[in-house]
Amino acid sequence: MDETLESQVQFLIEIDKLKTIERRTRIIHGDRLENDAEHSWHLAMMAFILHGHANKEIDMLKVIKMLLVHDLVEIDAGDTFAYDTQGNTDKHERELKAAHRLFGMLPEDQAEELLSLWMEFETKETPEARFASSMDRLQPIIHNHQNEGDTWQKYNITSDQVLNRNAEIANGSATLWKYAQQIVQDSVDQGILKQSGS
Amino acid sequence: MDETLESQVQFLIEIDKLKTIERRTRIIHGDRLENDAEHSWHLAMMAFILHGHANKEIDMLKVIKMLLVHDLVEIDAGDTFAYDTQGNTDKHERELKAAHRLFGMLPEDQAEELLSLWMEFETKETPEARFASSMDRLQPIIHNHQNEGDTWQKYNITSDQVLNRNAEIANGSATLWKYAQQIVQDSVDQGILKQSGS
Repeated sequence: MDETLESQVQFLIEIDKLKTIERRTRIIHGDRLENDAEHSWHLAMMAFILHGHANKEIDMLKVIKMLLVHDLVEIDAGDTFAYDTQGNTDKHERELKAAHRLFGMLPEDQAEELLSLWMEFETKETPEARFASSMDRLQPIIHNHQNEGDTWQKYNITSDQVLNRNAEIANGSATLWKYAQQIVQDSVDQGILKQSGS
Repeated sequence: MDETLESQVQFLIEIDKLKTIERRTRIIHGDRLENDAEHSWHLAMMAFILHGHANKEIDMLKVIKMLLVHDLVEIDAGDTFAYDTQGNTDKHERELKAAHRLFGMLPEDQAEELLSLWMEFETKETPEARFASSMDRLQPIIHNHQNEGDTWQKYNITSDQVLNRNAEIANGSATLWKYAQQIVQDSVDQGILKQSGS
């Protein structure tokens, strides 16, 4: 077998590990935590279905590729909880190391493409990265709203924390940020998310 | 909230169910069956990484969209095992009904796009559908080769069955079909796949 194909297959076998990385969020239809692989699929589907709400014209292929690869670094670095201040201090360093190891398994041009997609996603400066990132922020809000507050209850998260952390959804889509605020408010009204200061 | 967004979000909540549909194949790095959502993510990644081996020029966005949606019908119709002759007789009818219900949750233009992508995938006449389908056939061979024959052993599958069922990989990629034949032969040599007639 040629070396290119061999290294590509080894990479594809390695990334199967993404199916074993658990997030803090439960799936909606079942009583277990979501893993990063099914999460990445769900975000790609969200981008596909919701792209019409993006603030700007976006290159859909790039957005979807970004979402497919955005969590691969967690194979080495693990999932860092959104509200874990300490874990987030060295998150980038741990993830960058992981990116070099994992993407480095591929032929050079593809290693560069994946590294570049991941860095663009992390930097959040292009319309594609901003929209992709807004999918990543919106999805757990929808899950927690559907799951009676699940993660919010478990970690004692308040509505201000949710709103502050996720306000950047507006950078990708003003419409979806408005929607996110509505379900956050509805969650407070239902008593499944603690109102800040209450 | 506007009706378009409302129906899109309801669809995105509904398809979370794909995470609960189990396949017959185990994940590579762990002792459990793979579900359709993480499988769909893996195939999209395979298409992304392996597209250079396609027989013809392909529209990558279309291939990836097809792979993201190709198993959604199994939310209603369930996973039909590749080697289940009886289950495969009414498979298409059950899946078509599912496609109409699920995609019908979306705004009309998107319902049509998803139905059309799914039907194109099923018909396997375009270069995109043929390449996408070859990912779907190649992946379980790689998994079973990595997992000491797993599903092949469990269901007493022979090498001829594997080769006959998957020969159509060649329609998407001659290179990948050659590779698949190599790992099938290696599996026979290792004693993890029964040689036909032996």
